[in-house]
Amino acid sequence: MNFKELASTYKTPLYIYDLDYMSAQYKELKEAFKGRKSIMAYAIKSNSNLSVIKHFAELGSGADCVSIGEVRRAFLAGIPSYKIIFSGVGKSDDEIREAIQKDILYINVESEAELGRVELIAKELNSVCRISIRVNPNIDPLTHPYISTGLHDNKFGVEIDAAKRMYIRANNSEYLDPVGIHFHIGSQLTELEPIYESAAIVADMVRSLQSIKIELKFFDVGGGLGVKYNNETTIKPYDYAQAIFSTLKGLDLTIICEPGRFLTANAGYFLTKVLYEKQNGSKRFVVVDGAMNDLLRPSLYKAYHKIEPITESKSELSQADVVGPVCESGDFFAKECMLPTLEHNDLLVVHSAGAYGFGMGSNYNTRGRSAEVALKGGKAKLIRRREEFEDLIALEKEFLE
Amino acid sequence: MNFKELASTYKTPLYIYDLDYMSAQYKELKEAFKGRKSIMAYAIKSNSNLSVIKHFAELGSGADCVSIGEVRRAFLAGIPSYKIIFSGVGKSDDEIREAIQKDILYINVESEAELGRVELIAKELNSVCRISIRVNPNIDPLTHPYISTGLHDNKFGVEIDAAKRMYIRANNSEYLDPVGIHFHIGSQLTELEPIYESAAIVADMVRSLQSIKIELKFFDVGGGLGVKYNNETTIKPYDYAQAIFSTLKGLDLTIICEPGRFLTANAGYFLTKVLYEKQNGSKRFVVVDGAMNDLLRPSLYKAYHKIEPITESKSELSQADVVGPVCESGDFFAKECMLPTLEHNDLLVVHSAGAYGFGMGSNYNTRGRSAEVALKGGKAKLIRRREEFEDLIALEKEFLE
Ligand SMILES: Cc1ncc(COP(=O)(O)O)c(C=O)c1O
Ligand SMILES: Cc1ncc(COP(=O)(O)O)c(C=O)c1O
Repeated sequence: MNFKELASTYKTPLYIYDLDYMSAQYKELKEAFKGRKSIMAYAIKSNSNLSVIKHFAELGSGADCVSIGEVRRAFLAGIPSYKIIFSGVGKSDDEIREAIQKDILYINVESEAELGRVELIAKELNSVCRISIRVNPNIDPLTHPYISTGLHDNKFGVEIDAAKRMYIRANNSEYLDPVGIHFHIGSQLTELEPIYESAAIVADMVRSLQSIKIELKFFDVGGGLGVKYNNETTIKPYDYAQAIFSTLKGLDLTIICEPGRFLTANAGYFLTKVLYEKQNGSKRFVVVDGAMNDLLRPSLYKAYHKIEPITESKSELSQADVVGPVCESGDFFAKECMLPTLEHNDLLVVHSAGAYGFGMGSNYNTRGRSAEVALKGGKAKLIRRREEFEDLIALEKEFLE
Repeated sequence: MNFKELASTYKTPLYIYDLDYMSAQYKELKEAFKGRKSIMAYAIKSNSNLSVIKHFAELGSGADCVSIGEVRRAFLAGIPSYKIIFSGVGKSDDEIREAIQKDILYINVESEAELGRVELIAKELNSVCRISIRVNPNIDPLTHPYISTGLHDNKFGVEIDAAKRMYIRANNSEYLDPVGIHFHIGSQLTELEPIYESAAIVADMVRSLQSIKIELKFFDVGGGLGVKYNNETTIKPYDYAQAIFSTLKGLDLTIICEPGRFLTANAGYFLTKVLYEKQNGSKRFVVVDGAMNDLLRPSLYKAYHKIEPITESKSELSQADVVGPVCESGDFFAKECMLPTLEHNDLLVVHSAGAYGFGMGSNYNTRGRSAEVALKGGKAKLIRRREEFEDLIALEKEFLE
């Protein structure tokens, strides 16, 4: 990949996505599930650029959405309505209304109170809303607390008992059609066992619903497949699919997967330019033109991202913190990273930046968000232009008297 | 304050700023420094809405900026060039060029390498650039590690020895005019002692520069004055000013203050609506329509914000986590907060949201950022309109083929 040319054409900081890599990941996962009917519903939150979504749409992907904005993105990018799911703990009435009107595959319901709102709104619209219920299997996903979602002391999903009550209620309602069941125990999962255990619990639930004549069609296993940021051992898609299949004996269900990070993380690169080298006491800093407003993961999760220097420098490596211009000590990309002496305008490539990167970006410190570029078959193409100052003030300038 | 009416007029989630409170804070601080010449240079990063900046401009405030975007905001809002400062560890060449051309008060230089760039660019422009140097007094500010900036293992400023070399170099340069000295040891400071000690170290530095015939005009004490989020004991502006004065005996310097949080934090309220009550096991959750994309501080710093319910509910209080719709366990406003049972559409007021609130907002999960409303003399006025879906995709739609 010619990072130097990309930086000179599109300037820095810059996000670059390798769409061919995304295709390969998509196909590997889809292939692993070939023994059963399945829909890969791309988790748009991981990278919501319209051109990225469209790329998945062309591969046959569905979409997992967590806001009506994401649902609209899915439609705009060409994902068919019957492959679109709407999840999330906090859907507003307006969002529920629009999702029902758009006739998506189903709404993933996350609480009894929400079930009530969905029923009420479906009734107002005189329609029947297909739903799935997110069940909390209460299994420890063995991951970072901020991205673990499968234990009952977190906000997601409902417990098995509550879910059962909700299915019975939905089944008895004129306005609700319970078609699926859903779980998602966390993100960046690297252990297969918790997924298997969760699937087994949820599959048992499907059987117990069958015994009271509630027949589901969709078994939604969420997302969460981990990727290599550093030297993690990750789960093979084949093993993942087999583990899930093994829990579904005797059940005729379409499997829904909601992969995000697995498809996008390692397809993405964040390109940033060196502004200054600086030494404070014994501590070396490389100050770059990208910052936490561009890529929040290191600040928010202390996430590791590999950093690769593009430089002529032949100097010895020494430890440095790679930091941005934002006025917070938390504004860094890497701590104690081994780097050669760098020159003004040398490039650093921050790897694994395709998931939860641009999407968490802000305008903090009145910094415009980066441009985004897609690579396909060796060709680069701008897919979002850089934010300029005028963009940042557009919604407030008219109120300045 | 009639939060209910504001919510019904402007919808939720919503930011509300009490400009009269900001005026009172500004005046108290300015008054505390009346024994000397002083400029209050409002730290725009804390709340960068143009109408907020304009409000401070009308009070006579200057501006502390950390990007050329903030400098442009200051100009647009009517802050005079001779009261504008440009700080930050990572200024790009373009930013330095524009700051010199705009003839602002001075550029706060944060490294030897940066001093070189500034000199080079001033030379190219055939002009003389006024500078100040940010000195790192290496004093522990006794605050949160993410907002502490005064110890030498962080990226900010330069050490005393390096600063001295830089002043000599600047003084010998045709293109540089060293006019000030700067320190800022951290944010949300609640102890006076570290500020006093830092000021004393930096004042000694001024004296030692005098002895080699380098005469500075500005003594820039940074920002950082803490505020009450909960039950913190804070520093009184009068004591703050007196502590600084006491270090400046015999020196004729204009004091520059860069207050941010002190002026804006407790002027701001974040208004959010209850979507659902939900119980997972023994754990109670109140799901609201605002989220970490609106107010990141609880997720990023585990920051405490007081939550006040606006409800008819007369039920007993019990512990609840207040969480948003974003698909992250880290998406919360409060943990184990005592609240009555709440109804759909009840309001929660998140206090102390005026600083580092909206400005750190993102579009994560394709959520538009909130509207911002200013209150002045009891009158409410929209100062930034709510982001709509079309705004979010504007910069990428044209590239969708
Ligand atoms: C319900 C749900 N599905 C799918 C995903 C995507 O997760 P990942 O990107 O780890 O695959 C998430 C992530 O938070 C989620 O909450
Ligand atoms: C150099 C500088 N000045 C002023 C401020 C404003 O700080 P506060 O909002 O705590 O007053 C900051 C905050 O990070 C800063 O870095």
